[in-house]
Amino acid sequence: MGSTFGQHFRVTTYGESHCLSVGCIIDGCPPGMSLTESDIQPQMTRRRPGQSAITTPRNEKDRVEIQSGTEFGVTLGTPIGLRVMNENQRKQDYGNNTMDRFPRPSHADWTYLEKYGVKASSGGGRSSARETIGRVAAGAIAEKYLTLAHGVEIVAFVSSIGNEFLFPPTPTHPTAATNPEFLKMIETIDRKTVDSFLPVRCPNEETSKRMETLISDFRDRHDSIGGTVTCVIRNCPSGLGEPCFDKLEAMLAHAMLSIPATKAFEIGSGFGGCQLPGSIHNDPFIKTPVVPPSQSGAQSSTTRPRLTTKTNNSGGIQGGISNGAPIYFTVGFKPPATIGQAQQTATYEEEDGVLEAKGRHDPCVVPRAVPIVEAMAALVVIDALLAQHARQSARSLLPPLKKTIPALQTVVGGEAAAAQAERNSKNGADSV
Amino acid sequence: MGSTFGQHFRVTTYGESHCLSVGCIIDGCPPGMSLTESDIQPQMTRRRPGQSAITTPRNEKDRVEIQSGTEFGVTLGTPIGLRVMNENQRKQDYGNNTMDRFPRPSHADWTYLEKYGVKASSGGGRSSARETIGRVAAGAIAEKYLTLAHGVEIVAFVSSIGNEFLFPPTPTHPTAATNPEFLKMIETIDRKTVDSFLPVRCPNEETSKRMETLISDFRDRHDSIGGTVTCVIRNCPSGLGEPCFDKLEAMLAHAMLSIPATKAFEIGSGFGGCQLPGSIHNDPFIKTPVVPPSQSGAQSSTTRPRLTTKTNNSGGIQGGISNGAPIYFTVGFKPPATIGQAQQTATYEEEDGVLEAKGRHDPCVVPRAVPIVEAMAALVVIDALLAQHARQSARSLLPPLKKTIPALQTVVGGEAAAAQAERNSKNGADSV
Amino acid sequence: MGSTFGQHFRVTTYGESHCLSVGCIIDGCPPGMSLTESDIQPQMTRRRPGQSAITTPRNEKDRVEIQSGTEFGVTLGTPIGLRVMNENQRKQDYGNNTMDRFPRPSHADWTYLEKYGVKASSGGGRSSARETIGRVAAGAIAEKYLTLAHGVEIVAFVSSIGNEFLFPPTPTHPTAATNPEFLKMIETIDRKTVDSFLPVRCPNEETSKRMETLISDFRDRHDSIGGTVTCVIRNCPSGLGEPCFDKLEAMLAHAMLSIPATKAFEIGSGFGGCQLPGSIHNDPFIKTPVVPPSQSGAQSSTTRPRLTTKTNNSGGIQGGISNGAPIYFTVGFKPPATIGQAQQTATYEEEDGVLEAKGRHDPCVVPRAVPIVEAMAALVVIDALLAQHARQSARSLLPPLKKTIPALQTVVGGEAAAAQAERNSKNGADSV
Amino acid sequence: MGSTFGQHFRVTTYGESHCLSVGCIIDGCPPGMSLTESDIQPQMTRRRPGQSAITTPRNEKDRVEIQSGTEFGVTLGTPIGLRVMNENQRKQDYGNNTMDRFPRPSHADWTYLEKYGVKASSGGGRSSARETIGRVAAGAIAEKYLTLAHGVEIVAFVSSIGNEFLFPPTPTHPTAATNPEFLKMIETIDRKTVDSFLPVRCPNEETSKRMETLISDFRDRHDSIGGTVTCVIRNCPSGLGEPCFDKLEAMLAHAMLSIPATKAFEIGSGFGGCQLPGSIHNDPFIKTPVVPPSQSGAQSSTTRPRLTTKTNNSGGIQGGISNGAPIYFTVGFKPPATIGQAQQTATYEEEDGVLEAKGRHDPCVVPRAVPIVEAMAALVVIDALLAQHARQSARSLLPPLKKTIPALQTVVGGEAAAAQAERNSKNGADSV
Repeated sequence: MGSTFGQHFRVTTYGESHCLSVGCIIDGCPPGMSLTESDIQPQMTRRRPGQSAITTPRNEKDRVEIQSGTEFGVTLGTPIGLRVMNENQRKQDYGNNTMDRFPRPSHADWTYLEKYGVKASSGGGRSSARETIGRVAAGAIAEKYLTLAHGVEIVAFVSSIGNEFLFPPTPTHPTAATNPEFLKMIETIDRKTVDSFLPVRCPNEETSKRMETLISDFRDRHDSIGGTVTCVIRNCPSGLGEPCFDKLEAMLAHAMLSIPATKAFEIGSGFGGCQLPGSIHNDPFIKTPVVPPSQSGAQSSTTRPRLTTKTNNSGGIQGGISNGAPIYFTVGFKPPATIGQAQQTATYEEEDGVLEAKGRHDPCVVPRAVPIVEAMAALVVIDALLAQHARQSARSLLPPLKKTIPALQTVVGGEAAAAQAERNSKNGADSV
Repeated sequence: MGSTFGQHFRVTTYGESHCLSVGCIIDGCPPGMSLTESDIQPQMTRRRPGQSAITTPRNEKDRVEIQSGTEFGVTLGTPIGLRVMNENQRKQDYGNNTMDRFPRPSHADWTYLEKYGVKASSGGGRSSARETIGRVAAGAIAEKYLTLAHGVEIVAFVSSIGNEFLFPPTPTHPTAATNPEFLKMIETIDRKTVDSFLPVRCPNEETSKRMETLISDFRDRHDSIGGTVTCVIRNCPSGLGEPCFDKLEAMLAHAMLSIPATKAFEIGSGFGGCQLPGSIHNDPFIKTPVVPPSQSGAQSSTTRPRLTTKTNNSGGIQGGISNGAPIYFTVGFKPPATIGQAQQTATYEEEDGVLEAKGRHDPCVVPRAVPIVEAMAALVVIDALLAQHARQSARSLLPPLKKTIPALQTVVGGEAAAAQAERNSKNGADSV
Repeated sequence: MGSTFGQHFRVTTYGESHCLSVGCIIDGCPPGMSLTESDIQPQMTRRRPGQSAITTPRNEKDRVEIQSGTEFGVTLGTPIGLRVMNENQRKQDYGNNTMDRFPRPSHADWTYLEKYGVKASSGGGRSSARETIGRVAAGAIAEKYLTLAHGVEIVAFVSSIGNEFLFPPTPTHPTAATNPEFLKMIETIDRKTVDSFLPVRCPNEETSKRMETLISDFRDRHDSIGGTVTCVIRNCPSGLGEPCFDKLEAMLAHAMLSIPATKAFEIGSGFGGCQLPGSIHNDPFIKTPVVPPSQSGAQSSTTRPRLTTKTNNSGGIQGGISNGAPIYFTVGFKPPATIGQAQQTATYEEEDGVLEAKGRHDPCVVPRAVPIVEAMAALVVIDALLAQHARQSARSLLPPLKKTIPALQTVVGGEAAAAQAERNSKNGADSV
Repeated sequence: MGSTFGQHFRVTTYGESHCLSVGCIIDGCPPGMSLTESDIQPQMTRRRPGQSAITTPRNEKDRVEIQSGTEFGVTLGTPIGLRVMNENQRKQDYGNNTMDRFPRPSHADWTYLEKYGVKASSGGGRSSARETIGRVAAGAIAEKYLTLAHGVEIVAFVSSIGNEFLFPPTPTHPTAATNPEFLKMIETIDRKTVDSFLPVRCPNEETSKRMETLISDFRDRHDSIGGTVTCVIRNCPSGLGEPCFDKLEAMLAHAMLSIPATKAFEIGSGFGGCQLPGSIHNDPFIKTPVVPPSQSGAQSSTTRPRLTTKTNNSGGIQGGISNGAPIYFTVGFKPPATIGQAQQTATYEEEDGVLEAKGRHDPCVVPRAVPIVEAMAALVVIDALLAQHARQSARSLLPPLKKTIPALQTVVGGEAAAAQAERNSKNGADSV
C-alpha cells in the first residue's frame, strides 16, 4: 500500500528500478484542460541524473507517454495513465556477489526484506529514486492546472549543502523567516533563475560556487553530503487546508518526508522560529496593498484577499489554512547512503564483513531533488484546492444568513441549480 | 471498520443496542446552513418503533442532541457530532439462560463471534436496528442541504409486503418501470401522502389494507414477513456519479444493502427490465419540456437540462451518471429473523436444541425502513454532488477550448481566482 | 474519480475505448506469491468478444503485460502495474456524421457531456466494455491468492436470458434459494462445466438451447435482450465483511452494480425471499458435517467452522458477515443499448431525428459478463479477507480474557512479538 | 473534512472550544482487549492546563466517558465512542467588543473565515487546543494495544525552550543523533522520570531550571516562547511503514504537523544530519545483541530482529520502514500567538488598530504538548502495525518459494485456513 497520494487529485504510482516501466494513474484531473506530453517532459528532464559533472553520469531518457485520459490534447476528466519505460531492466537472480550478501547500510534492503519476506534483486525497489518519476509527472499536470486557474507559482531551490547556507542562521535571525532579504527573494525567484545556477541550483553566485566545491570535495573522497531545499508557493488561494489532521502544513510535511532521503521539514519560521518571542513571531494583519499589473504576466496582477500579514513567520498558513501570503518551507536531505568508501558492516547472515560499492555514485542528491519538491508541493496544493472548491461551490447555493459571508455563485447540473440559488438568495436572508 | 460512509459528506457512526449512547460524526457538511435539532428529529421519529399496532410496541424516545459543528443554529463547516442516549443499557453478563446458549438463526450472533472472538450480550451488536439511528440523523442533514440548494425531493414508500404488490409484475409490464401509472406516481408522491397510509406506508387504499391484514396474520401466527421499499429522488442534478467503480447506482446499491435485513436492490427497470428487448428498454431523448411554476413550492419550478428522456427505464441514471430524470429504485427486506415460534437449531456448543424467543416482536420491518432508505439515498446523493461540485468548480476556472462546453463560474479564494478566470475566458478560447 | 476499488487490495484502473492502452495498478497484493501473465490471461480470454456466432465479431487480442511488482515470477508486495494495448486507437475528431449528432439512447454519451463538459469521440469512454479489462486482470490475481491460501472457488453462470430461466420462480419457490436442486448445483458447478455450454454459459442442456435460440432471434431482428448471471463463492472463510456500511453483501452489490449494463442485485434468497415467512426463511444452525477428503484436489477437504446452517437462504452471509456457507448472488444485465434498428430520438441540439446505428452489435452481453462478475467477486472477497487478517492477527497477540475466544497466533516483526504473545497468553487469562 | 486519521485504526474527532462536548470515534480497535476509562484518563490529565505556575491556570476537568464499543471492560471490535463535556460552553453572539473586531494575529480567526464564510464566536474553533482531547484519548487506547501486544514504549520530553537546549548543537554534533549521551538517554527515559521534571518536562536538572526561568521571564513580560519536544518509540516491530507516499517518517511528520502550533519536524539525525558526510551518517549493520531479561518488566526482554544498526542516525527507519531500533524525532512548537502585550494590527474591516488580549495566557505550550506528541505517535504506529499485520498474515498462508522467507502462521476463519496453509507449506516449496 502507500502508493496513492491525494483524495481529490489522486495519484497512484507503480514501478521500481529494474522492472519493465514506471508510471502512474492520475484520477481527478479537471476536465477540459489542454494537456500533452510537452507539458510534463520539462520537469521530467530537470529531475534526470547526468545533468553535470557533480551529478551521477547515468543517462536516463525518461520519455513520458500519455496512455489515456486525453483526446486531441484535452483532458477528458477520466484517469490519466502515464508510462515511462525503464531502459535498464536487468533483473539479476539473487547471486553470491559481494553486494548481494550485504544489506547496504542506511539503504532499504534490510527493512524491505523484513517487511515483505522476499529478496528482490532491486533491494528496496520502491525506495529507488526512479519511483519519483511518477510523482514528477503527476506534479507537472497539477501545476499546469494551478497556473492556468489560479496563477499559482511554485519554485524550489537549494538553500544549503553541508554547512554552506544560502541564509545562515544568526543570533538576530535564527530563522531566515525574519530576514528581509529572504522574504524579498521568495517573492520573485523563478525556475529560470534557479537553473541558471546549475549544477547546484542555489540562486546566489558565491554560495553556489562554495557548494559546488564542497560537493566536488566529497565526490573526490568517495563520500557524500546532504543539504536542504527551500520551496515557495506564490498566489496560493486563501482557505486551503483542512482543519485538524489535514492541515496544509501537515500535508506538505507528509508529502516532503515521503521523498526518498528526506530527514526534516519546516514551515515558515520553522525550528528557528521556536526560539523567538511571540511578540516578534506573531504576524500582524494589514490591509492588502493593491498590486499593480506586472510586466511578468497575468498571474502577478492577481488581487489578493482584503487582509494580509505584515510579516510572514507563519509561512502563509495559519491554523492549518492558507492565508494568501507566500507559502514557504524547507526540506532536509541526508547524504546519499551509497558511497565509494569501504564500509565495515554485517551480512544478511549476521557475519561481519566489508562492503565496497562499485561504480560512480551521486555525491549529493539535493540539486536533483528540486523538481521533486516542486511536484509534491503541487500535488498537495491541488488536492486542498479541489476540497475547497467543493466546499465553496456547495456553500454558494445556500440562502445567505446573518452570520455568513456570501460566496460567489457556482452551479452543478445546469440551470436548475442556478434557478434554485437565485431563489435562495432572494428568500433566505432573514431566516436566521 | 466499515463505520464510515461517504468521501465528501462523511458519516461515521458508533453504538450498539445496549451501550450508553448511539450517534455519529458528520464531516464535510457545507458551512453556513441553518440547522437545529428540529431539522433532524422528524425522520428520527418516523423510524421509531411503536407507531402502531403492527409494529413493535417498544417505546424508544430517540431525542437527538447536536454536540458540535453549529453555533446559533448555523453550521460552521466543522464536524457535527450527534448523540442519542440509549435508554435500555442493560448489559447482562453472558449467562446460562436459553437465549445465551443459542446463536439465533439468521441473526448475526454466530458470525460476530466468528469475526471478533468476543461474546457480547448484545449478540451481533452493530447489526442492531439501533445502529440505523445515526444514519437517519445524518441523512436528515444531507437532505436539508439537498432541498435548500437544489430542491431535491426524496420519497420512499412500501411497494410490497409478502406477495402483495403495489404494482404486481405482469407479462406486459414485467417491471413497473414501463407502467405509466407508476411513472406518474413517482412524479408526485410525497411523504405526507405516504404517512397518511400508516401503519404500512403503501400509498394505495386497497393494497395498503391487504398488506395490513397480511402483517396481522403473520403476527398472530408468531411469524414474520418481508417486503420491498421503492424510493424516488426528484430534482437530482445531472452529472452525479463517478464512472467505473462508483457509478451512482453502485453507490445506491452499496448504501441500501448496508441497511440491516436487506436482500436485494434494483435500479430503474431492474430485474424485470432484463426481460425486455433493447428496442423497448432504450430511453429515447426528447427536448426537456418547460415546467410551469408550481403551486407546491419553489422546488418544482426548477428548469431542467435541455434534454431529457421520453421513457425512464434507466431510472434517471445512464452510464453510472444521473441524467436529471427521477431516480428510482427498489430494495428488498427479508422477514425479520426474530419470531415467536419455537425453532429447532443448535447451540454454540454444537448441540441440537429448541430456541424459543420471548417477548413481542416486529412481524415486519418494511414500513419502518422507509425513512432509513430515504436517509441512505440522501447520503449517496450529497456525496456524489459534492464530488461534482469540486469538478465543476475547478473546471469553471479553465480557459475555454474548442471541444469544451463552458461551466458557470465559481471562485475559491476570492477575487484572485475571479480575476484569473476572467483573464482565462478572454484569452484562452483559441488555444486548442 | 471512482477508478479505485478496495481498501486493502486496491485496484486503480485507467483507459477508455480509443486511447493507447487500458490497464490498472494493484496495490496490496500479498508478497511471495508466484505470478506470471499466464495466471491472468485465461480470464482475459474468457471475457473477449468474438467467441461465437452470438457474440460480437470484433476480434480483440487483449494480451496482458506485467509492468512491475514481480521478479522471477514472484510478487514483491509492491504495486503490480498491468497494461493491455488498445489495437483500435482511432480518435476521430468530432465530426458531422450521424452518430456524432446524436447522444445514443440509454448510452452514457449525454451524461458524460453533462458531467465533464467535454465532447469525446469515445462518447462515454469510461463506460465502455473495455474498461472492464483492468477489473478482470486484477480479479484473476486476487483469485489466485484466494485459491492458494484458502481454497476459495468462484464460479458464475448465466441463470436467465430474457424470460428463459434456469430456475424459474414458482409459487413454492419464489426464489431458487429454497430449491434443493439449485443448492446442489451451486455446491459443485465449476468453470469447465459452465464453458462446456458456450456460447451462453448456462449449465443446462435444454435451457441453454432455448437461450441460444432466443438470442439469435433478437440478433436477427436487430434488437437486443438482457438476462442474469448467478455466482457462487465456495470455501469463503467465515468472519468476512465489515459491520454497518461495509457489509459483505453491500460490497458485493457495489461491485456488481459497477459493472456496465447492470440493473439489479440479489444476495441469497433475494427479492423472492422477501415473500417468504420468517419461519421458512430462517436458516437453523447445525453441527458442521465432517467433509471427507475429495478427489478433486486439496481445496475441498477443507474443514469448516463448527456450526453451519441447514438451509442457506442467507446466501452465506448473516449480519453482513460470511458464515462459511456458500455465498451466492444474482446480477441483472439490461439489453444492450446499441441496436441495429432505427430509433426516434433527439440530437445534442434538441432537434428530433432518427438515429441508425451501423455495423454489427452484440445482441446480449450476459455470457461475456460471466468472468467480469467472477473478477469483481474476487476483489470484494480478498479485500474483506485482508481486513479480517489484520484484525485476527492483531487480536492474536492480546492476553486471553474470560470473555474472548483464543485466536491462532501470528507475528509481525519476528521473535519480539512472538515472545510478547507468549508472555501474554501465560499471564493474561485472569485479568478480566 | 480532515477530522479522520488512520486507515486501519481510524480516529474521527469532533468538537471545538465552546460547543457541548468534544470527542471521537475509534474504528478498528482490536477486539478482546481489556479497556476502561482508567486506561485513558492518565494521559488526559497530563495534557490538562493548570498543572503548575507556568501553565495556564484554567482548570479543565476533562473526564472521558466511553459511549460504546466495550462491554464489561472488554473491547468488542466495534467503534469506540468517547466523549468529554465542555464545561465552558459560552457561545457569545458575535458582538462589538474589541476581540470580536480583530482577527487575532497568527491565530486561525481570519483563515477560518476565509475558508468557511461563517463568523464563529470560537474564532478558529477547530484549531483550538481542546480539539486535541480526542487525539489524546484515542492515542491512549492505541498505546494500550501496542504495549500489550508488542511491548512498545513511547516517551516524549521537552528538548528545548527558546534557545535553551537539552543537547545544544555543536560543530562535532550538529545533531544530537551522533551524541552517545543522547542515544543512551532515549534507550531508558520513561514518563515517570519526565514528569519528575514538572513543570517543564525536560529530564535534566539544570536545563530544566533554566527553561523554567526563561518561561517565567516571558510570562512576566506578557510575552510567549516556543520550543521543541523529542519523542522516542522503543520496541517498535520492524517492517512498519508503507513504501512511497506513506513512509513511516512521512506519517509521523503528518501527525506531528497536525498538532496546533507546530512548525517543524525532524526524524533521526534531522536537519543536523544533512550537514554530515555519508561515511559518518550511514548506520552500519551489526548482529543484534542478546538482551538479558530486564527488571523493569516483560517488555524489555523482547528479542530483537537478527540485525540491528551500530549507530542510529536513521532514527529507526530506513527506506520509510522501521528497522527495530528506537525511532526518535523532534517537533518544533512556535510561541503561543495569544500574548498579553498590545499588538498593532488590523480589524476585519481593514482598519488599523491595537488589539489588547485579556486574561492570563499560557506563555509556553511545549510542556503540555508532551502527551499530545505521544498520542499522535501511537496513532501512527498502530496504523502501520495493523497494515503490516494484514500483510504478514496474508503472506503466511502462501506456499513457500525459493525466494521467500517463511512467515509465522496465522489463521482467518478457523481450521479451514489452517488446513490449507499446512497443505501449502508441504507442497509448495519447489514451485518456483
